[in-house]
Amino acid sequence: MTVEGRETLYRAIRDAVMDEITAHGIELVQEQDHDLLVPVSVSARHIHLEQKHAEILFGKNYTFTKHRDISQPGQYSCMEQVTIVGPKSQMERVRIVAPLRKQTQIEISKTDAIKLGVNPPVRHSGDLKGSAPLTVIGPKGNVDLLEGCIIADRHIHMSPADAKRFGVVNHQKVKVEIDGEKGGLMYGVTIRVSDRYALDMHIDTDDANAFGIKGQEYLTLIK
Amino acid sequence: MTVEGRETLYRAIRDAVMDEITAHGIELVQEQDHDLLVPVSVSARHIHLEQKHAEILFGKNYTFTKHRDISQPGQYSCMEQVTIVGPKSQMERVRIVAPLRKQTQIEISKTDAIKLGVNPPVRHSGDLKGSAPLTVIGPKGNVDLLEGCIIADRHIHMSPADAKRFGVVNHQKVKVEIDGEKGGLMYGVTIRVSDRYALDMHIDTDDANAFGIKGQEYLTLIK
Repeated sequence: MTVEGRETLYRAIRDAVMDEITAHGIELVQEQDHDLLVPVSVSARHIHLEQKHAEILFGKNYTFTKHRDISQPGQYSCMEQVTIVGPKSQMERVRIVAPLRKQTQIEISKTDAIKLGVNPPVRHSGDLKGSAPLTVIGPKGNVDLLEGCIIADRHIHMSPADAKRFGVVNHQKVKVEIDGEKGGLMYGVTIRVSDRYALDMHIDTDDANAFGIKGQEYLTLIK
Repeated sequence: MTVEGRETLYRAIRDAVMDEITAHGIELVQEQDHDLLVPVSVSARHIHLEQKHAEILFGKNYTFTKHRDISQPGQYSCMEQVTIVGPKSQMERVRIVAPLRKQTQIEISKTDAIKLGVNPPVRHSGDLKGSAPLTVIGPKGNVDLLEGCIIADRHIHMSPADAKRFGVVNHQKVKVEIDGEKGGLMYGVTIRVSDRYALDMHIDTDDANAFGIKGQEYLTLIK
């Protein structure tokens, strides 16, 4: 059989099978929905501070005030805000997310990065080696970061029980499907498993705005 | 057969067919690659003016100066820029794209829309009924648009010859695949066929930044 003939045959078989599956699709989707859906939260630009930098920016023994809880247990945004400064521009009112971390980390979108004039890599939280430099201005002082600015990768937090239920493992890359007039599939979504995590997908504002996601939606995990 | 049994059966058949197709995938992709790739351009926020508004903003008989050609024959961005004003903020230095059109049209991203405080619909170019209001400020006057602001849909311009080659028709919705660390599939990409069009996909800055697209890349059209 020629390559063209084989291709035509496979496509015909695939289409026939797909039609058959689709014909029973509503039933299947209804049966499976609760297993495949993941709530999503949109992360605006924010900063996690290390102890030393918190002291420089806000003064010794400063206590941060909770603004509101975020989707992960024990994590919260603070009333306090800082200004971040890049070579091209600066952005004010960047929220601090507590509690303090080992190393200061700034998470921005590519849109922010272009405006600020920096070129941060797409990274997991905490993986900061060689990430972009940026200056942070607080009420009591400034910090020039040599590294620490990233574009957070698309990721899904979940408990070990959720991971078992979804049939995925820590660090696995999955796809996530979004409905709507700007729908699509996100590739390269990282599974992050910990017993400290609640089930929630985190995306930045670029992904949210490109796909028409407001947050609070349920998206479909595809392995 | 139970619903569960049928589901298991269909999934097994689908997976077997997919495996079979995948086993021949490299051969098929190599055969088809040159037919499936589409160059992409990123549209920053811009405005098309109608005659009446051009006169109010720039004065009677004003002649616009070409900044540079854009990807569609006869279309060009101008040296002249305007300010657009929404309820929450304004944006300066918004490029005019010539020649003049029947109705003034402003194309912005969702990120821009949130910042400006407007809620434009996702639309084809020219489909402006009930689209968002916005104010435009030029050097000679202001225009309060009751409608005209949209988020342009993802679309691919092509000639009738290209459409034949790709096996698609005008207004057809296709998918486009993007590689890279923020890769994925865009759904709902509209095919637009005209003998005035050069082959080019147009996306806004949100889609570009979400998918890590700079422009000039070749993306894969999937029917």
